[in-house]
Amino acid sequence: MKHLDFWFEFASTYSYPAAMRIEKLAAERGVKVRWHAFLLGPIFKAQGWRDSPFNLFPAKGNYMWHDMQRVCQRYNLPFVKPSRFPLNGLQAARIACWYQDAKWLSAFVKAVFQANFVKDLNIADPAVLEQILNDLQLDAEAILTQAQSVESKARLQAANQQAVRLGIFGAPFFIAGQEPFWGQDQLELALDWCLHSEANLSSFG
Amino acid sequence: MKHLDFWFEFASTYSYPAAMRIEKLAAERGVKVRWHAFLLGPIFKAQGWRDSPFNLFPAKGNYMWHDMQRVCQRYNLPFVKPSRFPLNGLQAARIACWYQDAKWLSAFVKAVFQANFVKDLNIADPAVLEQILNDLQLDAEAILTQAQSVESKARLQAANQQAVRLGIFGAPFFIAGQEPFWGQDQLELALDWCLHSEANLSSFG
Repeated sequence: MKHLDFWFEFASTYSYPAAMRIEKLAAERGVKVRWHAFLLGPIFKAQGWRDSPFNLFPAKGNYMWHDMQRVCQRYNLPFVKPSRFPLNGLQAARIACWYQDAKWLSAFVKAVFQANFVKDLNIADPAVLEQILNDLQLDAEAILTQAQSVESKARLQAANQQAVRLGIFGAPFFIAGQEPFWGQDQLELALDWCLHSEANLSSFG
Repeated sequence: MKHLDFWFEFASTYSYPAAMRIEKLAAERGVKVRWHAFLLGPIFKAQGWRDSPFNLFPAKGNYMWHDMQRVCQRYNLPFVKPSRFPLNGLQAARIACWYQDAKWLSAFVKAVFQANFVKDLNIADPAVLEQILNDLQLDAEAILTQAQSVESKARLQAANQQAVRLGIFGAPFFIAGQEPFWGQDQLELALDWCLHSEANLSSFG
């Protein structure tokens, strides 16, 4: 089965519509989605940014918030500009990374994005994550404890190193075979590429 | 008649496919294009960048060059990665800004983009611009002299100040009424917005 690698960061605005849209679009094309949580913070820091580029560069930030409203309206997704941005998605990312193959993974990821970009909740707060896990009928305590483990931390660090090796510099980022696509508006193109990937060998990287 | 403001920079890779595609797409929708040359250099410098972000951030640059090949292939546009990037488009921008309403303006703009991104010519070289103007049967000497005048320099500076006031931070940038669109892949959306702009009043800025 063809698959698409979907790299997302919980603090990334445009990752939210991508996460909400990807399953239906992938299913329509018979493509399997592989969900990869990672952190943009270390990648930005390595290039000298100590904050989101949307905060560092106000014109770009103004545009993004306007565009996010427009994009979410286009896809009939609710959107509420968070009162704080960016929030720290570290704990949520450790969970999503460790439980990458769990059946409930996509439901968890979507609920965290909705907490951040619809309910204006602080996803860095363990109580918010606990509530999300409880709502999914999961063992919140066991999952949150696992996320604090040395191996969970190492797993996310390894994912971030892989992201850097793959040339990922922003989110959402999609990889179809070896073909990279950056930005939520490239989602359909990335999925379509999966269906024709043998005819379009990439020379990227 | 509805119109779309098209802001472009001659050194901007993604401005090239936008410039090549916009006339046909606009004509199909009965939209008039207003061409606005400006310079990204001063805008980047104001936010601390002394070079193109595609050079400053190599992962982003690698992706862009790969994506440019893909984008141009999609639209059947020739593309040759220039041996130097970014080139200085100052003289060309002064011409395009001063002669904004000339009938030959779009032909000149497209020829400069083709010189940069197809023929790998140095668009900072007055001889290259002279050849382009000659090929268009224009009075190259008069136009190049005018571009060096105090008023032509002031006109481009004013255009750049207007770009900053409009919240423009990259290129290509499209404005439909007050609604902003950044990126060549937003061109169709921007043109479609022109047709529905009264029903979609923007609150941007």
